[in-house]
Amino acid sequence: MDLPEQHLPTPAPASGKLRVVIIGCGFGGLETAKALADQRVDVTLIDRTNHHLFQPLLYQVATAGLSAPSIAAPVRHLFRDQNNVTTLLGEVVGIDLAARSVSLRSGQVLPYDRLVVAAGATHSYFGHDDWAAHAPGLKTLQDAFDVRRRILLAFEAAEREEDPARRAALLNFVVIGAGPTGVEMAGTMAEIARHTLPGEFRRIDPASARVMLVEGGPRVLLAMPDALSEQARQQLEKLGVDVRLNARVTEIDAGGLQIETAAGQHGAGTSRYRIESGCMVWAAGVAASPLGRLLAAQLPDGDALIDRAGRVKVTAELRLPGHPDVFVIGDLANAQSHKEGHEPRPVPGVSPAAKQMGRSVAANIRSELHGMPTQPFRYADYGNLATIGRNAAVVDLASKFGPIRFGGYFAWLFWLFAHVYFLIGFRNRTVVLIDWASAYFSFQRQARVVAGTDAPTGGAEPPAS
Amino acid sequence: MDLPEQHLPTPAPASGKLRVVIIGCGFGGLETAKALADQRVDVTLIDRTNHHLFQPLLYQVATAGLSAPSIAAPVRHLFRDQNNVTTLLGEVVGIDLAARSVSLRSGQVLPYDRLVVAAGATHSYFGHDDWAAHAPGLKTLQDAFDVRRRILLAFEAAEREEDPARRAALLNFVVIGAGPTGVEMAGTMAEIARHTLPGEFRRIDPASARVMLVEGGPRVLLAMPDALSEQARQQLEKLGVDVRLNARVTEIDAGGLQIETAAGQHGAGTSRYRIESGCMVWAAGVAASPLGRLLAAQLPDGDALIDRAGRVKVTAELRLPGHPDVFVIGDLANAQSHKEGHEPRPVPGVSPAAKQMGRSVAANIRSELHGMPTQPFRYADYGNLATIGRNAAVVDLASKFGPIRFGGYFAWLFWLFAHVYFLIGFRNRTVVLIDWASAYFSFQRQARVVAGTDAPTGGAEPPAS
Repeated sequence: MDLPEQHLPTPAPASGKLRVVIIGCGFGGLETAKALADQRVDVTLIDRTNHHLFQPLLYQVATAGLSAPSIAAPVRHLFRDQNNVTTLLGEVVGIDLAARSVSLRSGQVLPYDRLVVAAGATHSYFGHDDWAAHAPGLKTLQDAFDVRRRILLAFEAAEREEDPARRAALLNFVVIGAGPTGVEMAGTMAEIARHTLPGEFRRIDPASARVMLVEGGPRVLLAMPDALSEQARQQLEKLGVDVRLNARVTEIDAGGLQIETAAGQHGAGTSRYRIESGCMVWAAGVAASPLGRLLAAQLPDGDALIDRAGRVKVTAELRLPGHPDVFVIGDLANAQSHKEGHEPRPVPGVSPAAKQMGRSVAANIRSELHGMPTQPFRYADYGNLATIGRNAAVVDLASKFGPIRFGGYFAWLFWLFAHVYFLIGFRNRTVVLIDWASAYFSFQRQARVVAGTDAPTGGAEPPAS
Repeated sequence: MDLPEQHLPTPAPASGKLRVVIIGCGFGGLETAKALADQRVDVTLIDRTNHHLFQPLLYQVATAGLSAPSIAAPVRHLFRDQNNVTTLLGEVVGIDLAARSVSLRSGQVLPYDRLVVAAGATHSYFGHDDWAAHAPGLKTLQDAFDVRRRILLAFEAAEREEDPARRAALLNFVVIGAGPTGVEMAGTMAEIARHTLPGEFRRIDPASARVMLVEGGPRVLLAMPDALSEQARQQLEKLGVDVRLNARVTEIDAGGLQIETAAGQHGAGTSRYRIESGCMVWAAGVAASPLGRLLAAQLPDGDALIDRAGRVKVTAELRLPGHPDVFVIGDLANAQSHKEGHEPRPVPGVSPAAKQMGRSVAANIRSELHGMPTQPFRYADYGNLATIGRNAAVVDLASKFGPIRFGGYFAWLFWLFAHVYFLIGFRNRTVVLIDWASAYFSFQRQARVVAGTDAPTGGAEPPAS
């Protein structure tokens, strides 16, 4: 499927080194750059932010459990000692496949010999972009601050509110989408309402807050086996989360949302109802970066390369079809795992897959430099885990002896140590462990801080960020 | 000077408790509420933010040394166990002295029997409010994030910039005003440029950045004795800060500032020059909260009560003249310290003074409740300290045996432990000590994170916040 190697551009004559440009510093981009250490290449790493974000813990920043610097590391510092990497803060506005160059919003144009597009994904509101203002998603630090602000300010507005009906509406928290992020958010919000805040308010009882998890599909954590989904649902309900399955959101406005329950649920036909809410969080849809379509637009029949989520269908070596000098990896790639003697299998959009793709691309670039044969991508699936809240998680590990599946307290401990292990930086690990230990034993959360002086005007409208 | 006690309003008939409303949760407001614990009063504490900010360390958040939650504690949590305090997040938009009520932006009206106005101060640009957009001040967490963003993004823009002159301009950092905040900022910025960032950039040398401290007066730290000022100036220059005294700022725009040096300096007449800069910070002027003027407007001859900084001239018991039920404390008060046998002396605008005012007001409210005589405010001055940067500070302690003055490494250690001691919360103290120890030994700063995805467009214009 890939073009033969000799069609690939050779190193730039000036430095004699292959110029590798990497767009995006998530798990995929970071791993590509790291795996190219000690190679005779000039790597330029471009990101719109100045930090690598440990996204699996972003929900902890949103729920005031961790401060932002605990899960974000300055990219430039990570590559301090890797001299072949230049970090640039910038936004990519153009990629010219024919000229082999990337252009930034600042006007700079960067030529490349190899391009790695690892620009990730953002939220998708399925065509309802106006919903974003009422129910923010959770992809960036700014998103996390916005969600944190909405959660904390909804309780503050309720404390000020005199009207009982509006007060109750303010204390309805709704999470839309029961994937890993939605489940984590709902579980943690229930914990905040039941354990963190009680005793601190004088006019409301935070424990009376209702946390709802609304899911269009028939179960939570669809990527998990049935039994673990069911266990997760039970753990959520034990934490006090009101889980609504087969419930599709048809409208979101400033004061709440409209829900349609599929026929056959609750022994009835289709039902429609409205929920008033003081704080809604969107964890339902993901759309790949627009850079995918920007690439496709330059290819004959490029539309066919873009899947419904906006991802780019790549070759076995994660290359852009027809452009072997361009790799697309991570959440932006619709990739297949190739194992000898097996049918290719789709690669899931999870961080271990992005890291492995980064290493595979770096290995193939290395092979090209040394005139060695390149290899198709093969995804090693070590399993799947999701946390639900205090003491609750589900784990689905792949092993030689078949899957190992468990839930509850030990799954939660496993999740906790796995996440601390993969966090970057000793200081972050230490401080995160202190914050978690302190939160666990005191039921408190250390980052209950909202910057800015906005006081919402009361009523059911969530405050603007 | 105060009206006799019998003119004061009596407790509200409903609860039988005196209703005390406190506006502002800085050092003064917090201390008033704490000192009213165990009294039969209903305290309502109103603030525009949800946190008490430990302002003496705000410059550490601005210079990426600490994360925001390390120096900000949720107000509501601080009063969790003090049942007579109700915390409200809200912005005061009106105070009606005749009706004895406070109104919030949310529309709520809170009646009071005693009002404590502790709304603090903000920056003053001496009539040039348009300068705020180019040279932000440092009073709130939002300000600190803004300054952090500007410092870090100036280095990023310089790394992208191709033109040597514009690159040099981006690496000119200017701090305006050499009070404690200005001195701390300039010293820390020099430390970042010389010790934190080198080795992380490929196209620029961060150590070539120039940090300038511009002061209109004849010396730095005007509140300190002459000899300590001189010592501080020398320590600043040792850290690499270019200190310009008697230098008045006459204009600030997006790309830099205009300076006028008074005649007699450098053996010459008045000189004027321009400095191009990629990042300017305003630490020069302070203006009291507009609530001071709002109070004065309701008094006959109220204008005379407001001093040039917008502060309210209060009575010996820190009351609003003619309104013994209203106290004004902290940075909003122009107060005198009363010591028997001495002339009244002005109280400085520092946090120990604000705390002492809070305790004095609470003591007088308590005395009124129990029919005891009230007391004038007396300020106990324990001295003054200012940090300059790595290993450098100056200390001026008041003692029975006369002043104790020292500078350098031991002054810096003294400053460090004094600040950790006064930080609120065990977790904060632990994490701040970890961050400082780690920063001290590694020369690294843990919070080099800029939220948001803004990439500036290059050139000398500082990025918008």
